[in-house]
Amino acid sequence: MAILYHHPLCPHSRFVRLVMGEYGLDADLVEEKVWERREPFLHLNPAGTTPVLVEASIPSVPGADVIAEYLDETRGLALGDRRLLPEAPRDRVESRRLTSWFNQKFFDEVSSHLVMEKIYKRFMPTNLGGGAPEMAAIRAARSNIRYHLKYVGYLIRQRNWLAGDRLTYADLAAAAHLSVVDFLGDVPWDEDETAKSWYARVKSRPSFRPLLADGMPGMQPSLTYANLDF
Amino acid sequence: MAILYHHPLCPHSRFVRLVMGEYGLDADLVEEKVWERREPFLHLNPAGTTPVLVEASIPSVPGADVIAEYLDETRGLALGDRRLLPEAPRDRVESRRLTSWFNQKFFDEVSSHLVMEKIYKRFMPTNLGGGAPEMAAIRAARSNIRYHLKYVGYLIRQRNWLAGDRLTYADLAAAAHLSVVDFLGDVPWDEDETAKSWYARVKSRPSFRPLLADGMPGMQPSLTYANLDF
Repeated sequence: MAILYHHPLCPHSRFVRLVMGEYGLDADLVEEKVWERREPFLHLNPAGTTPVLVEASIPSVPGADVIAEYLDETRGLALGDRRLLPEAPRDRVESRRLTSWFNQKFFDEVSSHLVMEKIYKRFMPTNLGGGAPEMAAIRAARSNIRYHLKYVGYLIRQRNWLAGDRLTYADLAAAAHLSVVDFLGDVPWDEDETAKSWYARVKSRPSFRPLLADGMPGMQPSLTYANLDF
Repeated sequence: MAILYHHPLCPHSRFVRLVMGEYGLDADLVEEKVWERREPFLHLNPAGTTPVLVEASIPSVPGADVIAEYLDETRGLALGDRRLLPEAPRDRVESRRLTSWFNQKFFDEVSSHLVMEKIYKRFMPTNLGGGAPEMAAIRAARSNIRYHLKYVGYLIRQRNWLAGDRLTYADLAAAAHLSVVDFLGDVPWDEDETAKSWYARVKSRPSFRPLLADGMPGMQPSLTYANLDF
């Protein structure tokens, strides 16, 4: 069986779990505390980040985008209409553009700050950077999320899914990052009804269920987190 | 003819120029000052970043990694041994892992700071963030670059090129980011002879020549920048 090194509230790990869920691929989940910088984990991914996929056929596949391309190339073609990167070059460009929008830009501007300040710092020892959250970073993230949410709404008013007619990696990346922010209760859903209804559609997919059951010791998710009718 | 919206000292733009040079693809270069946030440019890339490739067959291909995947899918197969993403899944994983190492991690830790503080801020109006460089960011970048250079040396002591036997996207991404830092005279080449000799090999490729001729008004490159025997 494949192993996925992940963290329950790492948005990039959640993206890969959603992708594997959609593809019907199983993996043993192994929780990795990246701040411990475990030597055997650094061998699997010298960058020291989650997620990392390990399968029998390959030593390790590190990083969400690398895993997504790998799964497309090794599994995608066989999946026909359920393939999460569409076939046509221009549709692939649009799916990758938006996947990168969320896995990089949204992460830099929103989810990395909230995950670091509100989650990881609670569990990291002080000598490794743990401690009280920086409120300035949290405020910046809460302000930045508004235009991202509007952008989701703008796209969904023109299309069925984020990158076009079909569900693609872009929807799963966006939903993965938003799901962590939603766990923390920091998504201002009232700001864009279209974005909210798109998220409700992704959230109700079977691939999402394991994420909604996730938690962290001592942390309660927001009241609406696991509610499909939020 | 294709158009590449770029900035002469944007490392991601340089990566794409190297890729296109290796593939023998021509493009008209149009310099984009991203801080101006020009409306027509934001239509091509809502993220507002360089590079963006525009070809007759497709509205726009924004972002270095998206362009690299697009060129591989539309041109790569025909290139046989000169293809910059290798064929085997595990080799593609390694090339993408290291491409992302430089286009994301090295950029976050080194090249973004140096480009912003030492180049862009000179040309940006004060109301758009221009002004004196932040020395703390420059110092952090100069300190961070050392372990990246060591990592290049470590890899090249085991392999012919960064990701394996062949030149791949990984070499071009690494060299593109290093070339900007080298323009600024901030690469401590003495620290790793192996890394230096690998860079000399990439730098002497014909695809590199246009980059070595690049400049910015009022900025002199470091003395060794264009020297193939640095």
